[in-house]
Amino acid sequence: MNLPSVARTPTPLVLAARGEPVPVTPVWFMRQAGRSLPEYRALRQGIPMLEACQRPDLVQEITMQPVRRHGVDAAILFSDIVVPLRAAGVDVDIVPGVGPVVADPIRTLEQVHRLGPLHPEQVGFVAAAVAGLVAELGDVPLIGFAGAPFTLASYLIEGGPSKNHERTKAMMYGAPELWHALLDRLADITLVFLRVQAQAGASVLQLFDSWAGALSRADYLTAVAPHSRTVLAGLADLGVPRIHFGVGTGEVLDVMGDVGADVVGVDWRVPLDEAVRRIGPHRAVQGNLDPAVLFAGWDAVEREVRRILAEGRAARGHVFNLGHGVLPDTDPDVLTRIVDLVHDLTAA
Amino acid sequence: MNLPSVARTPTPLVLAARGEPVPVTPVWFMRQAGRSLPEYRALRQGIPMLEACQRPDLVQEITMQPVRRHGVDAAILFSDIVVPLRAAGVDVDIVPGVGPVVADPIRTLEQVHRLGPLHPEQVGFVAAAVAGLVAELGDVPLIGFAGAPFTLASYLIEGGPSKNHERTKAMMYGAPELWHALLDRLADITLVFLRVQAQAGASVLQLFDSWAGALSRADYLTAVAPHSRTVLAGLADLGVPRIHFGVGTGEVLDVMGDVGADVVGVDWRVPLDEAVRRIGPHRAVQGNLDPAVLFAGWDAVEREVRRILAEGRAARGHVFNLGHGVLPDTDPDVLTRIVDLVHDLTAA
Repeated sequence: MNLPSVARTPTPLVLAARGEPVPVTPVWFMRQAGRSLPEYRALRQGIPMLEACQRPDLVQEITMQPVRRHGVDAAILFSDIVVPLRAAGVDVDIVPGVGPVVADPIRTLEQVHRLGPLHPEQVGFVAAAVAGLVAELGDVPLIGFAGAPFTLASYLIEGGPSKNHERTKAMMYGAPELWHALLDRLADITLVFLRVQAQAGASVLQLFDSWAGALSRADYLTAVAPHSRTVLAGLADLGVPRIHFGVGTGEVLDVMGDVGADVVGVDWRVPLDEAVRRIGPHRAVQGNLDPAVLFAGWDAVEREVRRILAEGRAARGHVFNLGHGVLPDTDPDVLTRIVDLVHDLTAA
Repeated sequence: MNLPSVARTPTPLVLAARGEPVPVTPVWFMRQAGRSLPEYRALRQGIPMLEACQRPDLVQEITMQPVRRHGVDAAILFSDIVVPLRAAGVDVDIVPGVGPVVADPIRTLEQVHRLGPLHPEQVGFVAAAVAGLVAELGDVPLIGFAGAPFTLASYLIEGGPSKNHERTKAMMYGAPELWHALLDRLADITLVFLRVQAQAGASVLQLFDSWAGALSRADYLTAVAPHSRTVLAGLADLGVPRIHFGVGTGEVLDVMGDVGADVVGVDWRVPLDEAVRRIGPHRAVQGNLDPAVLFAGWDAVEREVRRILAEGRAARGHVFNLGHGVLPDTDPDVLTRIVDLVHDLTAA
């Protein structure tokens, strides 16, 4: 599925992100490297998640698996949003069936002052994995990634995954100075982590703000957007396209673009043509097939892919993707068929 | 906090729902009867959830607890959305820490054909509780409630609570005839269940579609709205105001009104003045304080209450409420103070 190789020719992903003409609509899948693949499950046997994220050999192999299998137009670095926190000294682990668990949830300014900074050498294992991957991937671009300050803050404050984010919002509403001090630190850590990936060769960077949709627009604007802007604006000098994604973000899609994204990720709740109306004409979009549709049989999948490609024509550039991550029980053959279908329907 | 009693004078809740002038903005809280109250936790000791829902004496006492404690302007029947399903013969239980668990998840048309109907006598215990409550409540109105067909379908298809609703959406996209047959049955059951409550004396009815926000607008319009309309339109002859609520419903607020609601419930993601723009001028709104704000200290709570009352003035009628249910760890004294504040700020 890879296009003919010409050194330094921009890839379809980079072209779409810049809003330039593409030879084919690029397609990749959030969480393409992961539990849907039997070869991933085999490789991870007995290896804890964070250990896997810290071993360049495993990161490289896991990142490559979906590229080989599906022929996607991008690899995304296998990692976890807590990797830079752990590297910066936070006592956090990923507990199977639970998610990230933080030993000492952050509640005080003293704790914030002890947080970070992240020194690039603390994530040398990531730089090594990125460099190895870029060599192995050839013309396929590598997407680096990090969690956004708000989503990281939620884990650090709650101590783990949270449905209602009550402690996070309690700090946000009740202790705004503490809140902004914490998010300042997290923005710095995130920025260092993304710059390391770009400088090691990542062609595109994605900032994930998984929980952004938990907030009202007013709160997002005041409490979150300035810190996401610190990260995205701090990447501008690198000339690497920036993707910004969250779930349930219909109310704030425009802001997610305005804080410095070249591409705004859109979940399945808002069609891409409507997303373009909200975001404006100067940015590309990424998305937005509902990952649950992949369980509905091929006819339904094909119908939805065609609809999304049609709606995506309204955009300056369209990166085909799911509206959220691949679900663990997904049949990986369906993912491969989607890549082929998107390419067949859009090849110039 | 109750207003002076005059027989059959419409209550503030009913007046607000009808868009008529109110002596005070009515306030109640979703899940006001429940885990935030120590007297509730004491009463439930050793009694499984569904047993509590099926015993009129317990339903009555639990429903009254927040009315006595907070002086809210409405009671809401203590029940669970699976109560009518269990009464209609579905093998479902509520497992502590998990939620509803269905023994035999629905996947076939044969299973749909075995589902229901609900005969009013099968929920005689609910009618008894409602009648007892109406006598005890005096001038305080009782809100009856039921889960909407889509949310019930999700539990029945997934077999329990689901984060991604993949089996539900697989049926919705992949087997639309089966889907609509199931939702037809569920709409019938829900309609019978709500009519029983109104006929036993409930003054207002609320249809909860907790998961409605998981869908795109197009899917909501095609797959869900017709069945919610069956329920709400089927209540019109009773002359009882109908509230329709879901979470994350910014994209479909207008549809939730159009299917037959007098009051549209709004979570905290969309401010009430913007909600009114989406819903139109002919319906009232309910909401929309973020339940997590109640953990942020009184200053933050008061600021948010004042903002919401100001934004609610854009509406034809405003029922003050949270944007979702009371969280279990909420300090109940904060709820009482909110009731007093809303009344103090809005008393004519």
